[in-house]
Amino acid sequence: MAEIIDGAKIAADIFGELTARVDALKAKGVTPTLAAILVGDDPASAMYVRMKRRDARKKAGVESILHHMPERTEADDLQDIIDGLNADESVHGILLQIPIPKHLDEDHFLRRIDPAKDVDGLHPFNQGLLMQGRPRFVSATPAGVKEMLVRSGVPIEGQHVVVVGRSVLVGRPLSVLLSNKAENGNATVTLCHTRTQNLEQYTRSADILVVAAGVPKFIGAEHVSEGTVVVDVGTTVMPDGTYLGDVDFEPVSQKARAITPVPGGVGPMTRVMLIANTVQAAEAAAATA
Amino acid sequence: MAEIIDGAKIAADIFGELTARVDALKAKGVTPTLAAILVGDDPASAMYVRMKRRDARKKAGVESILHHMPERTEADDLQDIIDGLNADESVHGILLQIPIPKHLDEDHFLRRIDPAKDVDGLHPFNQGLLMQGRPRFVSATPAGVKEMLVRSGVPIEGQHVVVVGRSVLVGRPLSVLLSNKAENGNATVTLCHTRTQNLEQYTRSADILVVAAGVPKFIGAEHVSEGTVVVDVGTTVMPDGTYLGDVDFEPVSQKARAITPVPGGVGPMTRVMLIANTVQAAEAAAATA
Repeated sequence: MAEIIDGAKIAADIFGELTARVDALKAKGVTPTLAAILVGDDPASAMYVRMKRRDARKKAGVESILHHMPERTEADDLQDIIDGLNADESVHGILLQIPIPKHLDEDHFLRRIDPAKDVDGLHPFNQGLLMQGRPRFVSATPAGVKEMLVRSGVPIEGQHVVVVGRSVLVGRPLSVLLSNKAENGNATVTLCHTRTQNLEQYTRSADILVVAAGVPKFIGAEHVSEGTVVVDVGTTVMPDGTYLGDVDFEPVSQKARAITPVPGGVGPMTRVMLIANTVQAAEAAAATA
Repeated sequence: MAEIIDGAKIAADIFGELTARVDALKAKGVTPTLAAILVGDDPASAMYVRMKRRDARKKAGVESILHHMPERTEADDLQDIIDGLNADESVHGILLQIPIPKHLDEDHFLRRIDPAKDVDGLHPFNQGLLMQGRPRFVSATPAGVKEMLVRSGVPIEGQHVVVVGRSVLVGRPLSVLLSNKAENGNATVTLCHTRTQNLEQYTRSADILVVAAGVPKFIGAEHVSEGTVVVDVGTTVMPDGTYLGDVDFEPVSQKARAITPVPGGVGPMTRVMLIANTVQAAEAAAATA
């Protein structure tokens, strides 16, 4: 029976460490601050923003401000808000909750955010830094997966990591992050996706298998070898409100060496890493002030 | 015996196509122009710049200007040159020959180049675009490897590509390029490097093996399966002036399905793709003018 990797517990530990770092910044007169921009009234987006702001304040002492703009916001107005936050030295991280309404050019506005405040790690400049092996802000989910592995004592260097899914938010940056020449990197990474043939051939050879396909129960026992560490990034909300991962937990956990549950695995790690990026941004700003 | 993939022939074909595109631009009053910046008197760097400028002019009709600056150039002066070229609408591509003298911050100046003129594809912004699956300028060597495969009729989609070497210039961007969701992409890519354990286990399972390790004769027959297509990016200049690839050509060519020679394989492709990027930049500038 696989060891269960407790993402909620690890995230709580990290929140504790962040609180100490935030206190140290406040003692120097710097209050780490995350600015969230929410455009429109999508209930899910509103909930995500609420959760992120609550995490920031309650779990780490990070200040949070909100710009809630109407659905029909004009491009110039959104641009003014972003430019203002870029220029505001009291703001360290800027989060533009996506998706934004269709009449606004999402790429344009994500690129308008100062890369030094891009705590979501979505600016091409920051993704390029990751590709060059010197990441600044890594998106919260891939950063969280790596941190979870490290804090669970799972070796990464020299291991074969198979990532299923090549999304801009998860699979692609994770594949780069874990294979970069760096401490807790240096894995040999294979990136699989919808066009991969004979998927099991790759997944069965993995020391660490990370699944971010977005398809409930996509990975079964036949995809996994004894001794594999399985990280399940998938979170599909079912009609009854429960969550399903991309991994068929019961049979796979009989076989794997370790496995992350859904919920309580990658999800809490994603939440804490956004705040960790914000604290990092505040520390960088304080260091150059 | 493996088919020999003739990079020089393919590159010549592409130069012919580029010449037609350049003629079309000139007919519209646009002369594609590549500006090269050479700092100092390193003989190898001077030779590379000379070759690139000669390729541009003689093989494609691309205009080329040169800023040759002294070894002791000050940062402000280099910055002024780059800023001037960024602002000059008659210049479409800017090439800063690296390495530059140690007293100058290479990262800073590579990032100072307008990403829209970064025909070397080294700006983090452009590398980020590649990572997001919508590349603009891909560095010449990875772009050339892909183009050579496509024009040789080697299928990429769904194939297992193993890349050996994770350099910023070759291995890393190629691994992303070939696995992106795009025409002639969609490969399942494994990126191997110095920390990879049991390298043969990966290379022997490759449909396409690309070697960019920089170690002469690093890959022997034992690394290759029957039917593999082998692309040799390595070019080490030996004391007697001859070139050696990373692949031990004789034994590997007995076993592989197809193989690129050194010289005459990837080298000519690298040279033509820099010019292709410059023509692309000029076309983009002409389209928005």
